[in-house]
Amino acid sequence: MQPTPVGPIDASAVPRFAGIATFARLPRLDEVGRADIAVAGVPFDSGVSYRPGARFGPAHVREASRLLRPYNPAQDVFPFGAQQVADAGDLVANPFDLQDAVAGIEAGARELRERADRFVVIGGDHTIALPLLRAVHAEHGPVAVLHFDAHLDTWDTYFGAPVTHGTPFRRASEEGLIDLTASMHVGTRGPLYDKDDLADDERLGFSVVTSEFVEEHGVAAAIDRMHARIGDAPLYVSIDIDVLDPAHAPGTGTPEAGGLTSRELLRMLRALAGRRIVGADVVEVAPAYDHAQLTAVAASHVVYELLSAMAPRTGGGSDAHA
Amino acid sequence: MQPTPVGPIDASAVPRFAGIATFARLPRLDEVGRADIAVAGVPFDSGVSYRPGARFGPAHVREASRLLRPYNPAQDVFPFGAQQVADAGDLVANPFDLQDAVAGIEAGARELRERADRFVVIGGDHTIALPLLRAVHAEHGPVAVLHFDAHLDTWDTYFGAPVTHGTPFRRASEEGLIDLTASMHVGTRGPLYDKDDLADDERLGFSVVTSEFVEEHGVAAAIDRMHARIGDAPLYVSIDIDVLDPAHAPGTGTPEAGGLTSRELLRMLRALAGRRIVGADVVEVAPAYDHAQLTAVAASHVVYELLSAMAPRTGGGSDAHA
Amino acid sequence: MQPTPVGPIDASAVPRFAGIATFARLPRLDEVGRADIAVAGVPFDSGVSYRPGARFGPAHVREASRLLRPYNPAQDVFPFGAQQVADAGDLVANPFDLQDAVAGIEAGARELRERADRFVVIGGDHTIALPLLRAVHAEHGPVAVLHFDAHLDTWDTYFGAPVTHGTPFRRASEEGLIDLTASMHVGTRGPLYDKDDLADDERLGFSVVTSEFVEEHGVAAAIDRMHARIGDAPLYVSIDIDVLDPAHAPGTGTPEAGGLTSRELLRMLRALAGRRIVGADVVEVAPAYDHAQLTAVAASHVVYELLSAMAPRTGGGSDAHA
Amino acid sequence: MQPTPVGPIDASAVPRFAGIATFARLPRLDEVGRADIAVAGVPFDSGVSYRPGARFGPAHVREASRLLRPYNPAQDVFPFGAQQVADAGDLVANPFDLQDAVAGIEAGARELRERADRFVVIGGDHTIALPLLRAVHAEHGPVAVLHFDAHLDTWDTYFGAPVTHGTPFRRASEEGLIDLTASMHVGTRGPLYDKDDLADDERLGFSVVTSEFVEEHGVAAAIDRMHARIGDAPLYVSIDIDVLDPAHAPGTGTPEAGGLTSRELLRMLRALAGRRIVGADVVEVAPAYDHAQLTAVAASHVVYELLSAMAPRTGGGSDAHA
Amino acid sequence: MQPTPVGPIDASAVPRFAGIATFARLPRLDEVGRADIAVAGVPFDSGVSYRPGARFGPAHVREASRLLRPYNPAQDVFPFGAQQVADAGDLVANPFDLQDAVAGIEAGARELRERADRFVVIGGDHTIALPLLRAVHAEHGPVAVLHFDAHLDTWDTYFGAPVTHGTPFRRASEEGLIDLTASMHVGTRGPLYDKDDLADDERLGFSVVTSEFVEEHGVAAAIDRMHARIGDAPLYVSIDIDVLDPAHAPGTGTPEAGGLTSRELLRMLRALAGRRIVGADVVEVAPAYDHAQLTAVAASHVVYELLSAMAPRTGGGSDAHA
Amino acid sequence: MQPTPVGPIDASAVPRFAGIATFARLPRLDEVGRADIAVAGVPFDSGVSYRPGARFGPAHVREASRLLRPYNPAQDVFPFGAQQVADAGDLVANPFDLQDAVAGIEAGARELRERADRFVVIGGDHTIALPLLRAVHAEHGPVAVLHFDAHLDTWDTYFGAPVTHGTPFRRASEEGLIDLTASMHVGTRGPLYDKDDLADDERLGFSVVTSEFVEEHGVAAAIDRMHARIGDAPLYVSIDIDVLDPAHAPGTGTPEAGGLTSRELLRMLRALAGRRIVGADVVEVAPAYDHAQLTAVAASHVVYELLSAMAPRTGGGSDAHA
Repeated sequence: MQPTPVGPIDASAVPRFAGIATFARLPRLDEVGRADIAVAGVPFDSGVSYRPGARFGPAHVREASRLLRPYNPAQDVFPFGAQQVADAGDLVANPFDLQDAVAGIEAGARELRERADRFVVIGGDHTIALPLLRAVHAEHGPVAVLHFDAHLDTWDTYFGAPVTHGTPFRRASEEGLIDLTASMHVGTRGPLYDKDDLADDERLGFSVVTSEFVEEHGVAAAIDRMHARIGDAPLYVSIDIDVLDPAHAPGTGTPEAGGLTSRELLRMLRALAGRRIVGADVVEVAPAYDHAQLTAVAASHVVYELLSAMAPRTGGGSDAHA
Repeated sequence: MQPTPVGPIDASAVPRFAGIATFARLPRLDEVGRADIAVAGVPFDSGVSYRPGARFGPAHVREASRLLRPYNPAQDVFPFGAQQVADAGDLVANPFDLQDAVAGIEAGARELRERADRFVVIGGDHTIALPLLRAVHAEHGPVAVLHFDAHLDTWDTYFGAPVTHGTPFRRASEEGLIDLTASMHVGTRGPLYDKDDLADDERLGFSVVTSEFVEEHGVAAAIDRMHARIGDAPLYVSIDIDVLDPAHAPGTGTPEAGGLTSRELLRMLRALAGRRIVGADVVEVAPAYDHAQLTAVAASHVVYELLSAMAPRTGGGSDAHA
Repeated sequence: MQPTPVGPIDASAVPRFAGIATFARLPRLDEVGRADIAVAGVPFDSGVSYRPGARFGPAHVREASRLLRPYNPAQDVFPFGAQQVADAGDLVANPFDLQDAVAGIEAGARELRERADRFVVIGGDHTIALPLLRAVHAEHGPVAVLHFDAHLDTWDTYFGAPVTHGTPFRRASEEGLIDLTASMHVGTRGPLYDKDDLADDERLGFSVVTSEFVEEHGVAAAIDRMHARIGDAPLYVSIDIDVLDPAHAPGTGTPEAGGLTSRELLRMLRALAGRRIVGADVVEVAPAYDHAQLTAVAASHVVYELLSAMAPRTGGGSDAHA
Repeated sequence: MQPTPVGPIDASAVPRFAGIATFARLPRLDEVGRADIAVAGVPFDSGVSYRPGARFGPAHVREASRLLRPYNPAQDVFPFGAQQVADAGDLVANPFDLQDAVAGIEAGARELRERADRFVVIGGDHTIALPLLRAVHAEHGPVAVLHFDAHLDTWDTYFGAPVTHGTPFRRASEEGLIDLTASMHVGTRGPLYDKDDLADDERLGFSVVTSEFVEEHGVAAAIDRMHARIGDAPLYVSIDIDVLDPAHAPGTGTPEAGGLTSRELLRMLRALAGRRIVGADVVEVAPAYDHAQLTAVAASHVVYELLSAMAPRTGGGSDAHA
Repeated sequence: MQPTPVGPIDASAVPRFAGIATFARLPRLDEVGRADIAVAGVPFDSGVSYRPGARFGPAHVREASRLLRPYNPAQDVFPFGAQQVADAGDLVANPFDLQDAVAGIEAGARELRERADRFVVIGGDHTIALPLLRAVHAEHGPVAVLHFDAHLDTWDTYFGAPVTHGTPFRRASEEGLIDLTASMHVGTRGPLYDKDDLADDERLGFSVVTSEFVEEHGVAAAIDRMHARIGDAPLYVSIDIDVLDPAHAPGTGTPEAGGLTSRELLRMLRALAGRRIVGADVVEVAPAYDHAQLTAVAASHVVYELLSAMAPRTGGGSDAHA
Repeated sequence: MQPTPVGPIDASAVPRFAGIATFARLPRLDEVGRADIAVAGVPFDSGVSYRPGARFGPAHVREASRLLRPYNPAQDVFPFGAQQVADAGDLVANPFDLQDAVAGIEAGARELRERADRFVVIGGDHTIALPLLRAVHAEHGPVAVLHFDAHLDTWDTYFGAPVTHGTPFRRASEEGLIDLTASMHVGTRGPLYDKDDLADDERLGFSVVTSEFVEEHGVAAAIDRMHARIGDAPLYVSIDIDVLDPAHAPGTGTPEAGGLTSRELLRMLRALAGRRIVGADVVEVAPAYDHAQLTAVAASHVVYELLSAMAPRTGGGSDAHA
């Protein structure tokens, strides 16, 4: 028989502001041995081309996640009750060597899989999506990538570097890690380097729902497109927090005006309930530019909706007062 | 014959940034003797469960209210010309004893009523809604409560304390202070402790328009539900500023992503024109987390729309250049 | 034959965060001799009635504009490739004498026209719209003014001063600088001094699309009204960044809750492609109240969409990797 | 017989964070009729040459002054018990016309003198020292000026303007308002426009104790020089908060590294006890650049030490619990 | 034989910014079983009279303590090598009931003593010193209290509450917890409620070295007085971070200008090496008012110097590369 | 005959807040052809081990340097009049490859030397000192290094990387770039990894004046030691802004409590007048952690005192009104 999942620390016994911060005050992975889903940090930002600082992202999101509670009424699910979620701490990445860092992250992710069926990773910059996709691919083969971002992240090289936070999905496509028929960007906007960027991007396997599309046609239409594209493929969800408008996510490295509201993004994520999510990342939270944990609160809710969408719909009884 | 209301200080004689800040640069209540509506502060935050600081809320909102002008085109009314509004200063509350504080606030509110027909109170944390409702109930009996908030605020106890900022409407319902057929939450969202929270809440007399409802169905639909629920009952309006998205109200104690915009909230409040508002509060502005008075500007406009909605529609002549 | 326009510094050779900041890392006007469009700053804020600080606006927007790239997919145009755009530096204005400053700005703008066909000016406070309109009028006669702002800016005098940031369009109308049949405010909201303000404003030649109108009827309806009003008249676009909600533009001098999102504003500006824009300003960015360059990022995108809308649709080939 | 002075609001009855902010929670001047010392604000900053914002200085310092208590152990005096101190509100100054503003401030100061024997004024920028000195001179003739500042403030003109925040003491000297044998700058430092600036300054009647002098010789030596220079002349004390190091006063308009600590400044001011202070100003607090009220706390203590130094040493009994 | 103490995580294997934050990245107490010194947090601020927020102090100081390294050259000691130091997490305190909280903290501290010989507690507000002293007294009898603070904290009651952050040492003295011949305040300054406060304070067992004393006589003289007073008594060290000047510790609740520099405070603490420290607290870090972790960095160094001063001088071999 | 140096833009013609920011509003190097001293930026921070962000340092310091004026009374010299100083813009460094970046910086520095006799470089992180020393060594052979810093920066490797911001002076010593008899750290403090760090450091050629030494013995004694050590050797001055206390320089990557004040540091730098300074850097200004340009103002004054100390003492006539 399945053991009952260990949930967050009971907030009626220990105030939310007390105690050392794990994600959502969940148990550490070493406390529960293994988990259905491991939440892990990758404090790494050596791949950024503009504002650095996402190395402090995992700690910042964990602090803001103290406010999360056990029951998600928007999805009618107990994400920490229907499955064991645990905080696996941070994967180590060499801050001074991009190639070594990427190798280290992949190794860390593979090792993590031995103790957890799936992972949701908190970055860190978007470079980390590549090693995470490599680890996912090793198990699942090519996966649909649903990518929320202001940017395409399918550029080629920058200062000769093939792997940076602007290139993970080009590399992933070239390496055959993604399902070319089922991948999609959502929320892109703002200026590009060249018109060819879009053609390249399409060739690499992505269709696009821009932020302008959402403005003109609404969120429901965007969700329809999203559903049509991803179908039932094994799905990797990659969320650059800069998909949100800078008003909703000032604490990020490459802000672009004209983005999504947090309400729109959360709605889109809820629409993923029941899809086959095999892994996810939430990246580019740069605390030095955040204010009042605005960006971190949004990111912690994003992780929470992902975990809820990943939860099995049967079972998951009441988890009162945590 | 009615005296002409004394309005704000004339901004063409004294710059808006000059002078000691009363709300909207209105006269103090002691200057005008009595008022149709008293605006009062309750600098109290000992009932908060997460970020404190709302004790500095009244001063902060008053500073931001310097920008308010006499004529409200959105409601076509002079809120300070159609009625005498005055600043009653702050009610005193013991910061070290919740029960004593709550008693003090109720006493202060009752005393205030002797000098003003109605009040709009600036908090302070949401604990204060309970003593304010007690004071209102003493005069009006059970009232409809229209409650804008990210949270239900109908939890039971926390660390054994029956009266905190998470419980005022459960206590109020239990005490018979509210009209169980006409009360409503608007804008709630985010995780709950348990699924039963919703059932409890309904039993306590509230229907709900969530933030997700607004996202999916729009503001007009929300207003329709709101109108249908509150009808013509004597109405108490309680606005936790965290009903706004953290992008619009970072300066608050328990932020939840996915909230209303200030434009949506102001529109909803304008729809209250002509309803029988018998009192109101605007709470949970925590200045230490605010930036550039963002939250306080929003809160001051919220108070302004409430005062406008409360203004009699006849009369209220021009009040040029204040 | 036309020379190929000199574009921004190549970001694959010099990181975006490096180098002395011109707008979008474009060449200085003195480097290219003359330009189709000059971007110039007017660091002046002695006309403000509340929060000063817009004198630091041009430097702040230039810093945030480092992120702009050459191709605008939303308008399918290379704004720096289809035309020569250059940074003309700042026009000088006497900070201690409003009349002298206004004369100086007009002289600077006229001189600028000798080296550039059109200009987009970054303020500074809204006072500067008057001398800029005088310079535009000298060439084009009365122009349609499309004015995005929370405020009407058609007040009369303030402390006896006829020219401040609250009065440019009244003065401009009185001087015959604007086309009374084709001018419009977009995004106005918030309290006014008096009901007559609206009647005065209409008499001075402006129709109005309020922020409330956008909330209730949507952006597409607003664009329809805008198009119907401005027609094919020579068009001056004046954008007070406070047309945005304070959540999107905290760094400004007279914030009003309930404004536009940056996504809405950018969409409206894109709808100006093909109109006869003869000049533009983007004003009231006050960096001391900004956070994480939120306001400056929005303002830089606003300038970018204006430049894109002003670009000729033929030509403008690829400008890879800048 | 003298009435007992009315002191601050009792902090054991009303928490310090409650109530509308007057300086130190003292009575308003209209409440007590007249006072020994009036504390007044001059919210004016149209004379600044760099960062504006000191127009919000008076409100900001008043907010921070809530923490001041009745007994000053460092001077062994009850500054609010030994004399009636009251808050006179703000003097009005035209923000759009320097000459008119200066005239208005002088008129306001003269009028203030009818209700109070002396004043301590909170700025506002340093321009205001000129009209204040004119008002003081009208009563006392030439006075010794003890001027704490990073800058000399004896420059001549700037953009043709003779009266700005960089020139008050040159104008005052030329007008014969100051005692050329007893005036002094303390704390000056940083680069000058020219070597002649120092010669001019000496000719205008000032000797100098630089910040470097304090670093090398200590505060005691500086106090000795100060005492030797000012003697027993009627003394006007003018304190630009930028005399403090930016670490101690970030919220100011023209910061210079290498300044005094607040502890050093307070010690110097205590050394003025018993001197014939006839008036004082504390200027250049610019809240938009302040953090956690750092600058305002320092400024409020500066005003407090001035008021203590101005208090008669006889009498001034206990004023418990205010 | 003694086991070798487990030190911080090796910074050459895991970057300092990675991993879940314990104090100085030390092991948790449950990992090592028991410790020579436990570092524990008390996230509690319901006893504050002005700015709240110290409930977030422990998490904030832990984050800043990531930078601490193993060897302290100023004391020539390895504080984590010469003794086992471990992070005991946070003691729980009821935020809604002062009496219950104080009882809970005392119980927590007594329990902590069963697993660690001594503790250094990170607050939280100064209220917590009372229950901590009660726990210390239970073991050691009356102890010398060396109290660094801007304030005396020997006031009597506030709003009828006998136990708040302004009263711990009066209560402690009345209860016989402190050694009346060996206790001392260091760094006090600023206004008092009444002259009697000082007489009361002396009667309660404290001598005083004010901040003014340090300014006039220097740190060495202050240390001499400190040494003379405390002698060889069992010593409890209580450090309110507001003993530092607001420039050095903006993130606190009751700032007073004119305080110590962090360099002065650290020097004084080093002078405690070899004294019989039986317990310590570092309190009143309020993160919402901090900037760039300024206050938390100072507080983490304060804890570090305390731990170093408490370390045995024999042994403590090299602890390379942690 | 020598041409008269071109100085800063005249502040009486163009306000200090106007115009595109070069250092001190000096001419660009390309405008004057060649210079006695080039001020250049190196926007690079890929070598940091904790908080990144110094890549934005050069732009931030240039903005703050707008306030610098032509005459330095503390050294009685016109640093921009006695020699031609010009802004050379930024050297390019690959953000994704440390080795490539270091090579690029050295190449840039050598090229710079062809157009300027000496350079003062604004960082960027401390990694850049190594390539700068290599370029200096190529011309001067081993130089005395006077190194102001909280840290030794003579660590060996970190994550296998031999060249990071913690290692430049070990590498420089190993490569024979520094004069082992005349080099010195000033202002070091805080915990080390191991006791051997100090022995290693001495062996690598450095003597040390700690921040504790300054606290105990004073600045004059520190200057004596500094003078004795550096003698008349060709001198390279390397200033990590974290030598200042975090109160004076919050905007940096590895803050340590207990540092120097800006007044102390400026005094020490003035004591270098007449020494043979052959090059200098000012590094580790991380704007995202700065407040009100505090750190940047300090850094700009540091550069200014260096330029003044490097100026020839003969000539350098008046440079009025710049």
